[in-house]
Amino acid sequence: MAAQLGFNQYGKAEVRIVKIKRDTERHEIKDLNVSSQLRGDFEAAHTQGDNGHVVPTDTQKNTVYGLAKEKGIGSIEEFGLTLGAHFTSEFDWVTGGRWAIDEYAWNRIPVDGQGHDHSFSKDTSERRTTVVQVDGDEKTVISGISDLTVLKSTGSGFVGYPKDRFTTLAETTDRILATEVTAKWRYTSTDLDFDAVYASIRKILLETFASEHSLALQQTLFQIGENVLEAHPEVAELKFSMPNKHHFLVDLSPFGLENDNEIFFAADRPYGLIEATVVRDDAQPAPGAWATIAGFC
Amino acid sequence: MAAQLGFNQYGKAEVRIVKIKRDTERHEIKDLNVSSQLRGDFEAAHTQGDNGHVVPTDTQKNTVYGLAKEKGIGSIEEFGLTLGAHFTSEFDWVTGGRWAIDEYAWNRIPVDGQGHDHSFSKDTSERRTTVVQVDGDEKTVISGISDLTVLKSTGSGFVGYPKDRFTTLAETTDRILATEVTAKWRYTSTDLDFDAVYASIRKILLETFASEHSLALQQTLFQIGENVLEAHPEVAELKFSMPNKHHFLVDLSPFGLENDNEIFFAADRPYGLIEATVVRDDAQPAPGAWATIAGFC
Amino acid sequence: MAAQLGFNQYGKAEVRIVKIKRDTERHEIKDLNVSSQLRGDFEAAHTQGDNGHVVPTDTQKNTVYGLAKEKGIGSIEEFGLTLGAHFTSEFDWVTGGRWAIDEYAWNRIPVDGQGHDHSFSKDTSERRTTVVQVDGDEKTVISGISDLTVLKSTGSGFVGYPKDRFTTLAETTDRILATEVTAKWRYTSTDLDFDAVYASIRKILLETFASEHSLALQQTLFQIGENVLEAHPEVAELKFSMPNKHHFLVDLSPFGLENDNEIFFAADRPYGLIEATVVRDDAQPAPGAWATIAGFC
Amino acid sequence: MAAQLGFNQYGKAEVRIVKIKRDTERHEIKDLNVSSQLRGDFEAAHTQGDNGHVVPTDTQKNTVYGLAKEKGIGSIEEFGLTLGAHFTSEFDWVTGGRWAIDEYAWNRIPVDGQGHDHSFSKDTSERRTTVVQVDGDEKTVISGISDLTVLKSTGSGFVGYPKDRFTTLAETTDRILATEVTAKWRYTSTDLDFDAVYASIRKILLETFASEHSLALQQTLFQIGENVLEAHPEVAELKFSMPNKHHFLVDLSPFGLENDNEIFFAADRPYGLIEATVVRDDAQPAPGAWATIAGFC
Repeated sequence: MAAQLGFNQYGKAEVRIVKIKRDTERHEIKDLNVSSQLRGDFEAAHTQGDNGHVVPTDTQKNTVYGLAKEKGIGSIEEFGLTLGAHFTSEFDWVTGGRWAIDEYAWNRIPVDGQGHDHSFSKDTSERRTTVVQVDGDEKTVISGISDLTVLKSTGSGFVGYPKDRFTTLAETTDRILATEVTAKWRYTSTDLDFDAVYASIRKILLETFASEHSLALQQTLFQIGENVLEAHPEVAELKFSMPNKHHFLVDLSPFGLENDNEIFFAADRPYGLIEATVVRDDAQPAPGAWATIAGFC
Repeated sequence: MAAQLGFNQYGKAEVRIVKIKRDTERHEIKDLNVSSQLRGDFEAAHTQGDNGHVVPTDTQKNTVYGLAKEKGIGSIEEFGLTLGAHFTSEFDWVTGGRWAIDEYAWNRIPVDGQGHDHSFSKDTSERRTTVVQVDGDEKTVISGISDLTVLKSTGSGFVGYPKDRFTTLAETTDRILATEVTAKWRYTSTDLDFDAVYASIRKILLETFASEHSLALQQTLFQIGENVLEAHPEVAELKFSMPNKHHFLVDLSPFGLENDNEIFFAADRPYGLIEATVVRDDAQPAPGAWATIAGFC
Repeated sequence: MAAQLGFNQYGKAEVRIVKIKRDTERHEIKDLNVSSQLRGDFEAAHTQGDNGHVVPTDTQKNTVYGLAKEKGIGSIEEFGLTLGAHFTSEFDWVTGGRWAIDEYAWNRIPVDGQGHDHSFSKDTSERRTTVVQVDGDEKTVISGISDLTVLKSTGSGFVGYPKDRFTTLAETTDRILATEVTAKWRYTSTDLDFDAVYASIRKILLETFASEHSLALQQTLFQIGENVLEAHPEVAELKFSMPNKHHFLVDLSPFGLENDNEIFFAADRPYGLIEATVVRDDAQPAPGAWATIAGFC
Repeated sequence: MAAQLGFNQYGKAEVRIVKIKRDTERHEIKDLNVSSQLRGDFEAAHTQGDNGHVVPTDTQKNTVYGLAKEKGIGSIEEFGLTLGAHFTSEFDWVTGGRWAIDEYAWNRIPVDGQGHDHSFSKDTSERRTTVVQVDGDEKTVISGISDLTVLKSTGSGFVGYPKDRFTTLAETTDRILATEVTAKWRYTSTDLDFDAVYASIRKILLETFASEHSLALQQTLFQIGENVLEAHPEVAELKFSMPNKHHFLVDLSPFGLENDNEIFFAADRPYGLIEATVVRDDAQPAPGAWATIAGFC
């Protein structure tokens, strides 16, 4: 037997770049966290410590800053594609890679009812994400939203489940349903108005969660996926990871008090975890594209 | 010599309570993190393991849930005062305590342009805080805001500082100024419209940061404090902890590129840390009230 | 087009269980974080909100506690297999699942040179992990180590890499090499002395890192994998995720001081990220087994 | 009324410095997190934006690196005193300050039964801390230990507490007692073998926790303090913050199983929080020294 090098990639993770567009007095801010990883022929580095092919991770970091200036950023998807095109054309042995970018939102601070020209507050309530991957001529873009916590104070129940010896949960037709959404979807094109599609998918996600009665978090998840696929033919599939952030009704009866779905304990751990894919029936599967998306498959 | 018991307090920390007001179809949500600690005569527990005075921390937790139902919550300041009044009247030997409450905001999810009746998304971009303390007949309320990250993309400089052998920093008249604000202020009354005062102080803080040119983060901090004190006679003093979240200009010259305040590296550590108090000149000092406010003095 | 359900799994995440073995006065402690997820026919829950197949996540939690008592825990790999066998035999429509278990170590507190019988301190410096997956008759076990931070203060360099327009990094034949190891390996058997194999692999990992000169983190990674594969025929492949935790030499020359590899700045972000697989040349590939291992592929 | 500047301090927080002692082949590593803050006359910066007195936080960072080289580090207490002496002598208007230093431990990796010369693994299970403060001629040193999690699987109970309407907790004479210790103690001298005293206090803390039966966490805390004060006349007082990390007995009776203190659920929140001071009866109180120690008073 001999040991062989299998799948590998390397690069610089979490390059924090803030770009200010200041061609007018009304500045714009772009705040990204960029991770660049290269794939290709890096065998000699692993087996012999020969770095002849190892584009330094420091160079990858510099390139993020340099190309942001030289070519601009645009949407995070476009910037990922820019980085991918650069590295695969610049170095013969780099045949592909992975560029993961998170974007943080900033809101203009309101002064006298108007958003200020150059003063902003950070919106940490959600995060827009993308992973652009290049493999030879093939490019895939998987975008998403993370950290978005939503809650329904009614319009959700959980009944009709199987019982066994270990079951103690009581059925309920009215509970709090809360989840911190991580959703990712695969585009079938790299030539899209990514900002507009993102805004639309986000809106569908929120409106579906808000409007539909939920018989199970699984059902809500599927409805969101279905509604997105109907509205967006450029999306092949969506994957969700939805923790069920339990809000347990507190038993106030020992204190002589009723609790008609009013007072809840918000628990940390353990939590339910619902993961599922909603896929267009005529979509080409792309297991490779998802293989490096942490926590999704 | 003998060992003695000095200052002590104990209780239950981080009781996570969510209360849904559901008397109409338009629900309201209150999401709190409550820490209750008692002060008084607990010497025997420490020196002899005699728990005769030790109101269990579990009971303190139960009381948070029970009183939220029985007496309602109101503002977090009012709920802290409710808890304080309960424990100091219920147990003879409990002469005071500390009730720290953080509040998380939730926004109604917009559907067809209207905020939904019972579906919400969590706003994690800032956190409202209070610490209510009771010591015999004296009550103090110190409220604040945390986790609020703000940034000016221009309108800030740093020049004129002393240089010594270890100085390498270059002066600049135009930089990014960013900070994650933690502000706390002491009220001189417990009978206030706490929600209205909070909203006003928050607005002054944001508008001052946005509007005023900054020669130093210290100056900006002081201006905020001064403006709040002028507008709010019920505030005796404010204390701030403001990390200077550095955004360093990236040197693109090795790549043959200019960087006219466009491309920045957002650094994690180390960070500047500016801490200061702005106090009304005729205010009574209250060092005891601040002694247990972590990171403030 | 129609929306279909694709890959899905669900369950209870992060069930924190501590088991005390107390059949003698010398207690033993087992401290685990268990995540249980079921796979099988759960389509109706997603598409119709029909929970007839949805074994509640609460029941899965209860089962973790119940089986820990009834069948014991053994190694984390054995406990994962126990959970898998239970769920797939108890419910017809549950055809597989994923049981991920982390184990936290506790050391006996030394008193008079002897480890105490029932008092322990937690060792948070590393974490033993496993993911047991069942798919019909097939079972896979992928075990690993996480959070282990190691550093070489010499015996590491980085030279001979390609330079381009964006390269500013200087070559060095003597640097600090530090990484926080996450390693995972796939066993080819479920009938092993898992505790003994784990201890051996951990030892090889540490000794290889310590002893071998490193021309690149990639080389060190591969050497570790190769040494493990040689010693352990029951391991088919290893995957590593190794952040290069940069320690930058501080330029003290402006202060008139030399810095002969003595004074370093330990940086947070960005960081290098080296990911690679070392595989036995005659191993059967198992992409499915890795698909749900977050961050590995 | 006018707004005035009250207590203030500023500086650079979390300067991460790693120093390698390499005068022999057997290297030694010192890994610190240093926060430097200056106190003195900084009024003009706050009220007028005049930075004439503002020693840049960047300079403070540089000074940490420079003095570590020039004067060495020694113990963290000695390094804090070195920094304090430097800044208060270098700048007339700097009359004092605060130097907080955390130290991370590294163990030599064992190879063939011997600790390696230059390869280490990080011990994250505890953290040694100090806060050195200078105010004119007065110097105080408050040192401590953090992040140390300890557990007794028996030898602990909780009975005899008062019951009221909100009490539901059952008494127990045998439970798990677990806490994550944060302890801080004030020295009465700056001329000590700080490393030796630290090692001794740490040992007393662990042995007392392990050996003594606990009727309440308060009692255990006091015993530790008392034992340290008896052994160390150079310690004036200790303050502790001890979360009671609850391990709840799981009710297995619905599954027809007994649970004789074997199977526990390790909870996250809420948690008990016990804070107390143990003070030498003839010690001079020093409220000012504790005022800036976050979470202690």
